[in-house]
Amino acid sequence: MIYDLIVIGGGVVGYAGAMYAGRMQLKTLVLGEILGGTIILTDVVENYPGFIRLTGQELADKLKEHALDYKDYVDLKEEKVKKIKGVGNCFDVFTNNGKKYRSRTIIFATGMKHRELKVPGEKEFASKGVHTCALCDGFFYKAKIVGIVGGSDSAAKEALLLTQWAKKVYIIYRGEKIRPEPINGRRIEQKVKEGKIEIINNTNVKEIKGTDKVTYVIFDKPYKGSKEFKLDAVFIEIGADPQSELAKSLGVKTNEQGEIVIDREAKTNVPGIFAAGDVVDTKFKQAITGAGEAVLAVYSAYSYINTTEMVCPTSDEEIQEKVKKSKKIN
Amino acid sequence: MIYDLIVIGGGVVGYAGAMYAGRMQLKTLVLGEILGGTIILTDVVENYPGFIRLTGQELADKLKEHALDYKDYVDLKEEKVKKIKGVGNCFDVFTNNGKKYRSRTIIFATGMKHRELKVPGEKEFASKGVHTCALCDGFFYKAKIVGIVGGSDSAAKEALLLTQWAKKVYIIYRGEKIRPEPINGRRIEQKVKEGKIEIINNTNVKEIKGTDKVTYVIFDKPYKGSKEFKLDAVFIEIGADPQSELAKSLGVKTNEQGEIVIDREAKTNVPGIFAAGDVVDTKFKQAITGAGEAVLAVYSAYSYINTTEMVCPTSDEEIQEKVKKSKKIN
Repeated sequence: MIYDLIVIGGGVVGYAGAMYAGRMQLKTLVLGEILGGTIILTDVVENYPGFIRLTGQELADKLKEHALDYKDYVDLKEEKVKKIKGVGNCFDVFTNNGKKYRSRTIIFATGMKHRELKVPGEKEFASKGVHTCALCDGFFYKAKIVGIVGGSDSAAKEALLLTQWAKKVYIIYRGEKIRPEPINGRRIEQKVKEGKIEIINNTNVKEIKGTDKVTYVIFDKPYKGSKEFKLDAVFIEIGADPQSELAKSLGVKTNEQGEIVIDREAKTNVPGIFAAGDVVDTKFKQAITGAGEAVLAVYSAYSYINTTEMVCPTSDEEIQEKVKKSKKIN
Repeated sequence: MIYDLIVIGGGVVGYAGAMYAGRMQLKTLVLGEILGGTIILTDVVENYPGFIRLTGQELADKLKEHALDYKDYVDLKEEKVKKIKGVGNCFDVFTNNGKKYRSRTIIFATGMKHRELKVPGEKEFASKGVHTCALCDGFFYKAKIVGIVGGSDSAAKEALLLTQWAKKVYIIYRGEKIRPEPINGRRIEQKVKEGKIEIINNTNVKEIKGTDKVTYVIFDKPYKGSKEFKLDAVFIEIGADPQSELAKSLGVKTNEQGEIVIDREAKTNVPGIFAAGDVVDTKFKQAITGAGEAVLAVYSAYSYINTTEMVCPTSDEEIQEKVKKSKKIN
């Protein structure tokens, strides 16, 4: 069987695209390494228009359910894509469990991956005081002292969340001034007043130390007289990298940040390949903008299929089948 | 008072933008001629990712509620904008009830307006057998024979909806083959098989006739032997025109179809003016793509305000206040 469309990425963007693809009767396969995507690490989503407040997991579930409402057309598999190979103007997609799927078009909705600090102790204490998801692991630090490394809006949100459990949250930021969304900036200010949050700026974590779990970190310069700083946990929120390696391997153009370059119709430079969401070069990336891009990508894929003479060599299986038949005839 | 942002249009796109603007603490005014926008004329929305099925009114209400969750920042008024005038690099927005509002930025989310057939009888029998909204008026035609003029997906959806009430629905299309979304195409085929829908192609309605209400129409060529065709109602669904006149008056660039030309960040060619949704030059316009554009427009407006030295002359009221004060001093 040849799919019309394979969506790589099982997050909100991939699901939104799959739903539309189902409506447009494209035979579609969604391949997701982590079903739900990175949004499931977010405890409160307040900015997907239509839902005043829900968890990232709930939003992902709603979109998944919506996509699977078109299950005559939409398949969903929790598999990691290892390689993609062009075959005529179709694509063969190879996954971690040895499967191969053929498709006329591809949408990359592969998102971004959390960046690492790359300091001693980070790997050693992973999940033993070094974490990347406050929602997942914050409640282990009730009445403890925790740090969050980063200065973005995501870092601010993680810090706010951690105040629910921790006695004190330190935001450790290499720059001068953290840069949350204004609404979160005000929330942070309030917590600073209450003494629940303290910001340590112009400072880097150089090492993470402990015994069986984290007990302190070492800064690149003294804070309150010492480079050693007692923390029960370090949450790392220093950005993310677009997952565009597979796309690059197919000749898809990326920018300096490694983001896939798309046009207004979510087309890449390679015919039959489209992209949407956190992996693309949109400046202001949000769940809703990614969902919109996914819909444009599906429409572009649909138009492409309907206006392109597809040259898909028959699959190995089909070739073998033909060989068998021809043997029978002879 | 000077608003940071005035959103012109109170549909799903305007609301999505207003919600984000509220989150970003932009003092925002939404001006809507028809609150809810054209989507409230749609009975079933199945393609806004996250909601498997709801009415257009329900979707508009959810987005409105979401926007008004930021009511410290977001005002909403049911007023029609008559004129906009540049003042320094701000804008004065004049409405139908004589009000004037000043803003640093504008987002056009003005949508599209239903196109008219422009044939004799259309105005005369408006709401007396000539309609533009199956959801609003379809139930008046229980067990009657109705026609729908048009061949788009919207026309197909209206025809399907009308089969709930009408004995028979004729789709009258000037072209060869109607062009619904595949899923609706299949539904139409089914109804044609059941004899509930019949398609009259390559045919135009030249006149609408009746007494106190519509009784028949006149085609431009015979169908089943006659140009006169008995119908109890005609629903007109032949497309829509982007509402870009106000934008044009400010020097905003539009394309041949009258759509506002935007870039990937929802900027128009005029600094401080942004646009999103059905009024812009996106090829595949959907509620979700418009919502995404609105969010990009708000982000662009926010960035613009934070990086531009705003030269807003003080308002007339402020000038008068200053005059008063100076008189007191002298």
